[in-house]
Amino acid sequence: MRVIVVNSGSSSIKYQVFALDDCTSLVEGLLERIGTRDARLKHRRLTEAGDWEEFVETRPVADHREGFQFLLEVAARHPAAHATPAGVFGFGHRVVHGGEAFRDPVIIDDEVIRRIKDLIPLAPLHNPSNIVGIEVLRALHPDVPNVAVFDTAFHQSMPPKAFHYALPRELYHQHHVRRYGFHGSSHQVVARAASIHLGLPTSRLNLITLHLGNGASATAVQGGRSIDTSMGLTPLEGLIMGTRCGDLDPAVPFYVSRKTGRPLEEIESILNKESGLKGICGLNDMREIQRRADEGDAEAQLAIEMFCYRIKKYIGAYYAALGRVDAIIFTGGIGENSARVRKESCAGLNGLGIILDDARNEQASSGVVEISSEDSKVKILVIPTDEEREIARQTIETIRRATHKKGHLP
Amino acid sequence: MRVIVVNSGSSSIKYQVFALDDCTSLVEGLLERIGTRDARLKHRRLTEAGDWEEFVETRPVADHREGFQFLLEVAARHPAAHATPAGVFGFGHRVVHGGEAFRDPVIIDDEVIRRIKDLIPLAPLHNPSNIVGIEVLRALHPDVPNVAVFDTAFHQSMPPKAFHYALPRELYHQHHVRRYGFHGSSHQVVARAASIHLGLPTSRLNLITLHLGNGASATAVQGGRSIDTSMGLTPLEGLIMGTRCGDLDPAVPFYVSRKTGRPLEEIESILNKESGLKGICGLNDMREIQRRADEGDAEAQLAIEMFCYRIKKYIGAYYAALGRVDAIIFTGGIGENSARVRKESCAGLNGLGIILDDARNEQASSGVVEISSEDSKVKILVIPTDEEREIARQTIETIRRATHKKGHLP
Repeated sequence: MRVIVVNSGSSSIKYQVFALDDCTSLVEGLLERIGTRDARLKHRRLTEAGDWEEFVETRPVADHREGFQFLLEVAARHPAAHATPAGVFGFGHRVVHGGEAFRDPVIIDDEVIRRIKDLIPLAPLHNPSNIVGIEVLRALHPDVPNVAVFDTAFHQSMPPKAFHYALPRELYHQHHVRRYGFHGSSHQVVARAASIHLGLPTSRLNLITLHLGNGASATAVQGGRSIDTSMGLTPLEGLIMGTRCGDLDPAVPFYVSRKTGRPLEEIESILNKESGLKGICGLNDMREIQRRADEGDAEAQLAIEMFCYRIKKYIGAYYAALGRVDAIIFTGGIGENSARVRKESCAGLNGLGIILDDARNEQASSGVVEISSEDSKVKILVIPTDEEREIARQTIETIRRATHKKGHLP
Repeated sequence: MRVIVVNSGSSSIKYQVFALDDCTSLVEGLLERIGTRDARLKHRRLTEAGDWEEFVETRPVADHREGFQFLLEVAARHPAAHATPAGVFGFGHRVVHGGEAFRDPVIIDDEVIRRIKDLIPLAPLHNPSNIVGIEVLRALHPDVPNVAVFDTAFHQSMPPKAFHYALPRELYHQHHVRRYGFHGSSHQVVARAASIHLGLPTSRLNLITLHLGNGASATAVQGGRSIDTSMGLTPLEGLIMGTRCGDLDPAVPFYVSRKTGRPLEEIESILNKESGLKGICGLNDMREIQRRADEGDAEAQLAIEMFCYRIKKYIGAYYAALGRVDAIIFTGGIGENSARVRKESCAGLNGLGIILDDARNEQASSGVVEISSEDSKVKILVIPTDEEREIARQTIETIRRATHKKGHLP
């Protein structure tokens, strides 16, 4: 049987199909431009030879319902050549915001949907599209269980001193203003991979996990639990990102509004879409930024310096929060691929027992790679993230636990 | 001769008179409620016996001009009984925002006033009142030099990676949006005192200075120069303060505005005046908060925990920024007086070589006190700040350098 992981966005659906038995990825795809006459589906399947075969189709797709029908039809036409019994074991849905209601993945029923809807004000851009995906698949396949896996859930273990802001209490009690954190599945999966690599149970490990992609966040993981993370009420806080500013004097929006006369909404959009690396140097692709910096572009150099300096300060802050650190983990597109970012972020941290090995760091490779020097007290690891596989794993576990409770196996 | 240090606020004037020769404080006072019919002057002078004698007078004061006349008259009536030649050597003005224009204190002339006025948009609440104080004293005593000492100047040594925000470049180039930092005189004076106490030149010292008062900020000082500080474009960013929130997801103001329908100005005021310790537990006096916490008040306990946890994270972040730290310095009302805050902020930092000695920390005393244990790699010091004396010192130095350049001594 298969598990299908779905990330339903406002005008797109990302999906990936895994084998139930070993969580091999069999199929993956992306449908874009939902709501237009030329929606485009890119679908890849694993062949018998172990290669990926790609299919691209374009057709009018009015809404998410038609979108899911389209991709399920193409998936049926071009299935993976993998010897696994047919049938769908479950759908795993990535849901951005679980608020304080969800500390764990959950089997979706009407009550769960109602509660995810209640959280829309906290994630107005994401939760509504996530819900559409859930509702369409429930209607199309009423017999298959749906599981919600929340980006925020892993961070629900943060203590009050870490998740509260120093704001009037009623903003928390009435309006739920607090730090939630995101990228939970990614921080969780690399923390587990580090535990396997180091041969120590997560309960005995203190880790700093750095998810550096177009979005970026740092998490302090103590004994397998998130005790602090850099993203906050929204994914705008913390590290510098592709187009998001991260940490900022909270007075800046007011000042900019007064100086430029621009409305609030526009300033919010600037902080989310025109800031970060793009704001500093005009580009948000780290590979391109590094190329420009190598050519002597001062703004590109500044962008890299600022990006790494912010990471370095979070390493220090979470070192202090954890008291002892066993390993620092780089993951995400930039974390996995930019030796330069890893090097600059760890430079000068010998005093904290963090020493990078330059040769190991430069070496391209896949899987878990140790890039710290032999005399580094703290291990430095590069670990590829795989949020979709983690969502598949949690989906399977959640369905098995639920059916086990009911006293019968699926 | 005397040096008079002036801090001219919107409806108040704080002043302190120092002896030119040894910078002894001779007189200090505060005039409040300027612009009302019952402005109140509290004036204290040093007696021959070495005690402080206090005078309180109330009278109508229409504006700052009348205010300065009032306090100069009272000061003449109740001078300090100190054998120093009469006459005023100079006025030292605390000016909050020097922008990028001022890296050092400066003798005030028309051009300097013009440039301080240009900076009003960056400090709309402070620079205008500071300028009023300067203009009134120049008119009243055209023969006495006036020196501006800027709260921001000490931090002008920060490198671009520390002072830039990850925002569109034009916000810096057109609107001067960047980190400036404040409390400069305080961070500078305790850094110098630490160097004297440790018997090492500032050029060889790496320090983390923590100014914890009703306003609070942390600074990373490398070789006597600020390389990073927690306050930003405004004094709202960074540590948790009496009524200011400090670090916050920059998306929070937008979210709160949408949820509550309150106008921007009101939200800005909440972040500045209703947040921080007061927002968390209803109180902004740390002594009272500690008393409540001891009585079991959970919100007061949370306020202390959050306050100290934020400090701890900054210690870690600046440790990483500096690479090596020789000493951590606590100053300001809370930093000098709360053993509990010092203890909680340093707890669990043994891994960084930061170990507090509980007995030394609890011991009440004055002057520079070392509260780290013998085996602490990093010294922990309590150093009383004295911003006014530092402003006096810088005023004297600036006037002497200027007159020396001109080839004659005052």
